[in-house]
Amino acid sequence: MKEFDLIRNYFTEQIVKRKDVFLGIGDDCALLTPPERQYLAVTTDTLVAGVHFPENTPAKAVGHKAVAVNLSDLAAMGAEPCWISVALTIPEADEDWVGEFCQGMFELCEYYNVQLVGGDTTQGPLSITITAQGTVPYDKQITRSGAKTGDWLYVTGEIGDAALALQHYYQQIELPEDVLALVQKQLDYPVPCVLVGQALRGYASSAIDLSDGLLADLRHLCESSNVGVNLVLDQLPISNALYDSLGAEKAIELALQGGDDYQLLFTVSEDNKVGMETALADIGETITCIGQLNLSGKITTTLNSQPTQINAKGFEHFDSDQ
Amino acid sequence: MKEFDLIRNYFTEQIVKRKDVFLGIGDDCALLTPPERQYLAVTTDTLVAGVHFPENTPAKAVGHKAVAVNLSDLAAMGAEPCWISVALTIPEADEDWVGEFCQGMFELCEYYNVQLVGGDTTQGPLSITITAQGTVPYDKQITRSGAKTGDWLYVTGEIGDAALALQHYYQQIELPEDVLALVQKQLDYPVPCVLVGQALRGYASSAIDLSDGLLADLRHLCESSNVGVNLVLDQLPISNALYDSLGAEKAIELALQGGDDYQLLFTVSEDNKVGMETALADIGETITCIGQLNLSGKITTTLNSQPTQINAKGFEHFDSDQ
Repeated sequence: MKEFDLIRNYFTEQIVKRKDVFLGIGDDCALLTPPERQYLAVTTDTLVAGVHFPENTPAKAVGHKAVAVNLSDLAAMGAEPCWISVALTIPEADEDWVGEFCQGMFELCEYYNVQLVGGDTTQGPLSITITAQGTVPYDKQITRSGAKTGDWLYVTGEIGDAALALQHYYQQIELPEDVLALVQKQLDYPVPCVLVGQALRGYASSAIDLSDGLLADLRHLCESSNVGVNLVLDQLPISNALYDSLGAEKAIELALQGGDDYQLLFTVSEDNKVGMETALADIGETITCIGQLNLSGKITTTLNSQPTQINAKGFEHFDSDQ
Repeated sequence: MKEFDLIRNYFTEQIVKRKDVFLGIGDDCALLTPPERQYLAVTTDTLVAGVHFPENTPAKAVGHKAVAVNLSDLAAMGAEPCWISVALTIPEADEDWVGEFCQGMFELCEYYNVQLVGGDTTQGPLSITITAQGTVPYDKQITRSGAKTGDWLYVTGEIGDAALALQHYYQQIELPEDVLALVQKQLDYPVPCVLVGQALRGYASSAIDLSDGLLADLRHLCESSNVGVNLVLDQLPISNALYDSLGAEKAIELALQGGDDYQLLFTVSEDNKVGMETALADIGETITCIGQLNLSGKITTTLNSQPTQINAKGFEHFDSDQ
């Protein structure tokens, strides 16, 4: 088939040309020159049509999201994104689709100065695997395992809107057009917290990105750090759209369970609170304190200052995340 | 689903622990420390069931092959393999299958001291995307574009056996059991030319690995280097199994067209021939000179010293290779 030659052309139409790329797409390997005295941060995520995004998702959104979910993992380590490799499996060589997919991918790459350095295109059921690489100076990395008892738990932005859009898609709820437009954008075009992640270097004691849902990812963080936490549910940053659509209780449940937020969940010691808030002030990202870590090893919750049971589990993809 | 937790356990059962892996599997990213004054070589390849390997291929072979095809790309650049990330998409969480897949993957990784640093497991039609990374000292990389007129063209090992095994699978031919066993091994367990690739540093003027078939990959090399070549078909390293099964003419045709060889095709200047042969002597890999580069920009062939038409095209996967 000659179609793949045409498709491959789209992969070379990127604007970003980084100086640390000695050889880009077109040989057996790319050749890169990573900076000295920095860790290379590497992450791989796959999106499968019908599992990680609805089948009818526009190609541009698929391209955006495939990059975004990987940059989100880099952000959670405090890394600066540099390069991505893309493995695109598509049922047929649909040039229009691939063109729009690349547009979504490249717009996000240009914004963060990320260069595509490798691409493999194969025929099969639609799925996209991206490996993203970034750099973080030695000893400035943020891991899941550094949280300490007494640290404060924060989350960026608002959570639950993407899950609300999915509920509409699965016809569990019918949203008015204006609300749907708002939340659909969160589902299709998540914005990775790249700058926040880097700003948190030296301040956050731990971080994780929210892909599987607040509760599930919080559990990963607590297990890695060997801590517990009491979540103050009243404080969860829930959008007006979500509140008004479901009412308080169900909105909180969805914010806890829903996936696809791609916000950062992070912890900060009492001593670093002011420094962290100062560092984030220029970026303009909203952050919300939603709890404090403790020795219990468990996740407990309070609502209106009363202990509350959670019988909801975080939404689990069939997905090992990283 | 809890199944992915079980599956993820298999990914952590590797023996290789490299000193340049600061943080391995289990966080949002792996953190690596690449060596100084070396290029980082990066390649990504996807294998889709039914496209790149027969559906009934044993899990262990799939794991081996997914790693091998990527190490083969690193070999073609002269790079030393270091780390891989694996994205495994499987229809269901079949622990036995994943266990055998990992066994095939890890056996090859251990042989070359390659560490798995990232894994994503998702549900969907069977496919595997691996991103492999290696290192090559500055100015020692071997690209597709360095071949010069007058250079000699070499290929490692024997070619065409994997394609013969595929012909048996597709019932285009019926092979006796002992022959099938021989060629099936080439299809299922290709051996990447990792050591040869590194030994060729400083000697080969260009190289490419044979994944799409000799003719197709030779065309890539000639286009990248802006040279032509006359192939001496009598010299093609064809196994006795292939010769005896198809006869000379059809054997040559398959050796030209067949894919999945994962041998190296490389070029060496007259001045570097002795050095290259000396460097390869210790490794014990057979190499064969199959032609000389010229200015024509075309691929011509001779058989019994007579010009011969090729009406066969190299087997093309729907595959952009790298």
